[in-house]
Amino acid sequence: MKETIYFDNASTTPLDSRVLSAMTPYLTEVYGNANSVHKVGRMAVKGLDEAREKVADLIGASFNEIYFTSCATESNNLAIRGSFLSREEGKNTLVISSIEHASVLSTASELEKQGAIVKKVKPNSSGYLSASDYQNSISSDCFLACMMYANNEIGTIQPVKEFANACNEKGVLSFSDCVQAMGVLDLSVKDLGVSMLSFTAHKFGGPKGVGVLYIKNGVKISPIVSGGHQERMKRGGTSNVAGAVGLATALELSRQNLLEETSKIKGLKDRLVSRILTEIPNAVLNGGENTLPGIANVTFKGIGGEALLYALDLSGVCASLGAACSSGTIEPSHVLKEIGLSDIDAKSSIRFSLYKQNTVEEVDRVVEVLKSSIKKVSER
Amino acid sequence: MKETIYFDNASTTPLDSRVLSAMTPYLTEVYGNANSVHKVGRMAVKGLDEAREKVADLIGASFNEIYFTSCATESNNLAIRGSFLSREEGKNTLVISSIEHASVLSTASELEKQGAIVKKVKPNSSGYLSASDYQNSISSDCFLACMMYANNEIGTIQPVKEFANACNEKGVLSFSDCVQAMGVLDLSVKDLGVSMLSFTAHKFGGPKGVGVLYIKNGVKISPIVSGGHQERMKRGGTSNVAGAVGLATALELSRQNLLEETSKIKGLKDRLVSRILTEIPNAVLNGGENTLPGIANVTFKGIGGEALLYALDLSGVCASLGAACSSGTIEPSHVLKEIGLSDIDAKSSIRFSLYKQNTVEEVDRVVEVLKSSIKKVSER
Repeated sequence: MKETIYFDNASTTPLDSRVLSAMTPYLTEVYGNANSVHKVGRMAVKGLDEAREKVADLIGASFNEIYFTSCATESNNLAIRGSFLSREEGKNTLVISSIEHASVLSTASELEKQGAIVKKVKPNSSGYLSASDYQNSISSDCFLACMMYANNEIGTIQPVKEFANACNEKGVLSFSDCVQAMGVLDLSVKDLGVSMLSFTAHKFGGPKGVGVLYIKNGVKISPIVSGGHQERMKRGGTSNVAGAVGLATALELSRQNLLEETSKIKGLKDRLVSRILTEIPNAVLNGGENTLPGIANVTFKGIGGEALLYALDLSGVCASLGAACSSGTIEPSHVLKEIGLSDIDAKSSIRFSLYKQNTVEEVDRVVEVLKSSIKKVSER
Repeated sequence: MKETIYFDNASTTPLDSRVLSAMTPYLTEVYGNANSVHKVGRMAVKGLDEAREKVADLIGASFNEIYFTSCATESNNLAIRGSFLSREEGKNTLVISSIEHASVLSTASELEKQGAIVKKVKPNSSGYLSASDYQNSISSDCFLACMMYANNEIGTIQPVKEFANACNEKGVLSFSDCVQAMGVLDLSVKDLGVSMLSFTAHKFGGPKGVGVLYIKNGVKISPIVSGGHQERMKRGGTSNVAGAVGLATALELSRQNLLEETSKIKGLKDRLVSRILTEIPNAVLNGGENTLPGIANVTFKGIGGEALLYALDLSGVCASLGAACSSGTIEPSHVLKEIGLSDIDAKSSIRFSLYKQNTVEEVDRVVEVLKSSIKKVSER
């Protein structure tokens, strides 16, 4: 049987065994409800507090600015729906980019049904947004502006600091979906200056089912999941302590040797891209130069992406057409369309996303498998 | 060191080691995103599908009526906020009981801010609701009615089947928070006839961070966490497959020897209550006869509940003042106030909640600790 090569780390990463070890006490003896005041509860609170402290330290935030959620999609919904629910009267406009993640785009669509006006800032043809476009789009009736840190399909890194400055100057709340960047880049909320940012553990070796929304002190948003007093009344529900501990541990591990790891991942991606562009005719890299170290999105002109993905899969290579969250649709990627690709080229594009467990041997094997798969698909 | 006796299972139960074993593959080798179409993703989908099928079978529902969420609080919010968002024009009234869980009460309060009218049905002095009171409260402008299956503080079991009939006759959506009952009683949605019901894994030996909302086929509600195509577009976010598998396994295990286990738990509780009422002066049981097998709520008249809880904790006994989700408040329990207790009596009440790992020896030890703790607290 062929060994599996996993180049779909932007969809999710394997859980780091050290993270699972850190979680295990909270899946066994430390079973308390973190809201209980007795000994068993206090042991759980201790784990939760330590996780929150660790996350806060790692991203340059305060303890009480870290809100645990169940995933980045929930964090994104909380940031956007929560701002909408607590907006000032007359402020009905939401500014987002047209290349945001599905969770931002679909939340914006839902809010439109509830009376919000959604303005979309477009990227240039390489997939980059500009802070000045936001500045021009933000009017006095805007309750929130959103710019993702790095695009999940093509990896383009956006000028979030400049975006935050523009929002702060206009007195508008700013939010950045940092899902793909966190754990790969050394992000600090102090540097960025945004009002809110989101991320999730499973993109950097942590467990699924836990996310964070950073909410700067003083920023007021309404809960979308209300219940008890958990998460300072911004998110009800019994705390997933094991998940929070897993997220904090994974983030901590991601920051150890970050530069070295990032450089390794980038080296692998560069080798992959370079070999593809050299050895495979009609292959075009999407997203230009300033992209995440691990993401490469390539159009194989004239080759059906679905058929190619299927052929790769048969040979043990896992990649994706774009976002996993958009799987199940037959629509071409909205991101690739926004940067000017035709439907047919968008449907001929594959995202390869690498992480630290990947190797040079895997890269070389993927190139060979790609060549033989393209041949097979072309001959059909 | 004193051994800990955990009588706070209504807050959360320990994770069953067999459940953790079932989850472990999904925390290690089966790490895929259930939305990915490649082999690694398909392995995750398989786990998720099997979990959904198992849950559906166990509660008499169809596969596509089971929606995984991150917790019961989210399920309750989705049922209520989701119905509100998709309500017909002119239907602004929500009918709930006054003894619902914090997640229902606080969601109702949030919706009031958004224009909903909330009507509250009151219990009788033992803590029981009546379906006819709901029938009288449901007017033509009602978009949803909610009756919890069993109260989380005093364990009273409510006439949910009659409630659902009343709602169905009136053509109004019905929802039941089954968090405390699921895993203890043999609930079937076919018997109950409600439009929606919720529960969470960690109340019956499963992990924290995963819940279910059953939504009857044909019932339309809007998402509150929107994103990709997960959960049939009703709940975005990367699936927590390990959590779903854990929930399904825990529910399955809870149904094995259910009658035997329930009878054992009830036997323990009856022994506890009987000894308390016989041996401790001025102790009064709240909630009457038809309560959950594991929950006993007792007022120790004249004894400060917080001080007593603290004394119990010092002696290794974990119990609670009421709901863990309401911890952190200094308010007396809304449930006890609703059944007519004075503030002082409500604050003198303790909830003991037992589960299958508890023993007769623990019951007897708790009675002794209670007696000595009450003596200590009284002498202060």
